[in-house]
Amino acid sequence: MAEKSISSAVIHRLPRYYRYLGELKENGVERISSAELSQIMSVTASQIRQDLNHFGGFGQQGYGYNVAYLYTEIGKILGIDRRNDLIVIGAGNLGRAIANYGNFERRGFHIVAMFDRRADLIGMDLGNGLTVRNAADLEQYLAEHPVRMAAIAIPKTGAPEVAERLIKSGVKAIWNFAHIDLEVPDDVVVENVHLSESLMELSYKYHSRHPEAE
Amino acid sequence: MAEKSISSAVIHRLPRYYRYLGELKENGVERISSAELSQIMSVTASQIRQDLNHFGGFGQQGYGYNVAYLYTEIGKILGIDRRNDLIVIGAGNLGRAIANYGNFERRGFHIVAMFDRRADLIGMDLGNGLTVRNAADLEQYLAEHPVRMAAIAIPKTGAPEVAERLIKSGVKAIWNFAHIDLEVPDDVVVENVHLSESLMELSYKYHSRHPEAE
Repeated sequence: MAEKSISSAVIHRLPRYYRYLGELKENGVERISSAELSQIMSVTASQIRQDLNHFGGFGQQGYGYNVAYLYTEIGKILGIDRRNDLIVIGAGNLGRAIANYGNFERRGFHIVAMFDRRADLIGMDLGNGLTVRNAADLEQYLAEHPVRMAAIAIPKTGAPEVAERLIKSGVKAIWNFAHIDLEVPDDVVVENVHLSESLMELSYKYHSRHPEAE
Repeated sequence: MAEKSISSAVIHRLPRYYRYLGELKENGVERISSAELSQIMSVTASQIRQDLNHFGGFGQQGYGYNVAYLYTEIGKILGIDRRNDLIVIGAGNLGRAIANYGNFERRGFHIVAMFDRRADLIGMDLGNGLTVRNAADLEQYLAEHPVRMAAIAIPKTGAPEVAERLIKSGVKAIWNFAHIDLEVPDDVVVENVHLSESLMELSYKYHSRHPEAE
């Protein structure tokens, strides 16, 4: 599979294809044309053909796409055809929201441990089989459980230090909710969720569409 | 200001410029060259010049950018030079994380009410001046308080109905955390935060960088 050559724009769209194909599959749809998929997803049919051609051989003229096959293949490309364990640093509302988000588990992501340094949170039973661990024990935990993915859900001031500790303990993928850009070595990947920035984009869209608004 | 012609890619980068310029301003930096800004932000200087040229006249050859001025102007473009009220639907962990996220208030976003339909959450004091209201009272609240922005932080099954109710009550901007694409009229804008999809992108990046991983 020629994964290396896929642009980040295509990669960005893959989870959405995966979501729609999953819904079609659940509804018993076996095959779908790019025109039909185009209508459901509000994307042009040519965009869909172009995107899915990157993975070759899924679509056939006059037949369309095999939904289950395409769903499985995109899952493989996204690396979610296997179990992915992750730990969460920060047991505040955001960390708990992440830990309790049932959708992740359906996609093969398992949150196996949760850490915080706040004494009032350490030991808290999260009701999903997890108890908040002391952040001081992070290195020991990762030495015993070589987890490679971690979510950082703490304020930005503490995030760079936590990221450094995670990386030293072998973490290779950081899901960063702290409002700061982390500096990481080449073999570590970061995906940012900057909520403030998303809200500012909403604000831009709103005010440019409604210039009369206060 | 020629806002209409700015591409969505540039808009997507503006909040990050805003964040860095805000930090520079806080640190007392008065002016900065595109080369310096480039180094801090890990973006090419030509990209910075190209992006900021959309707003015209901020940079001067041999002088660089006036940090405070550029910060203010980008804030205006993003519509955060004024107060923006929003309500939050869903008082679960995610909704509470949004409601307690102090950074928003610094950017002029004020969460003025929070709603849920779960009896065990209605009436809950969130400790930030907010008490969870009954979702059944949404229309009445919006009739009395014409808020135009709303965050939807509930499971996807209920999200389309809630969006419809919000829109009927005059909401024009939806910050959507539900894992579904909302259908909205032309004058309503949506910004999605699809956490599962972000996590799948992290997974892709990780597995493509580390193909040897299990």
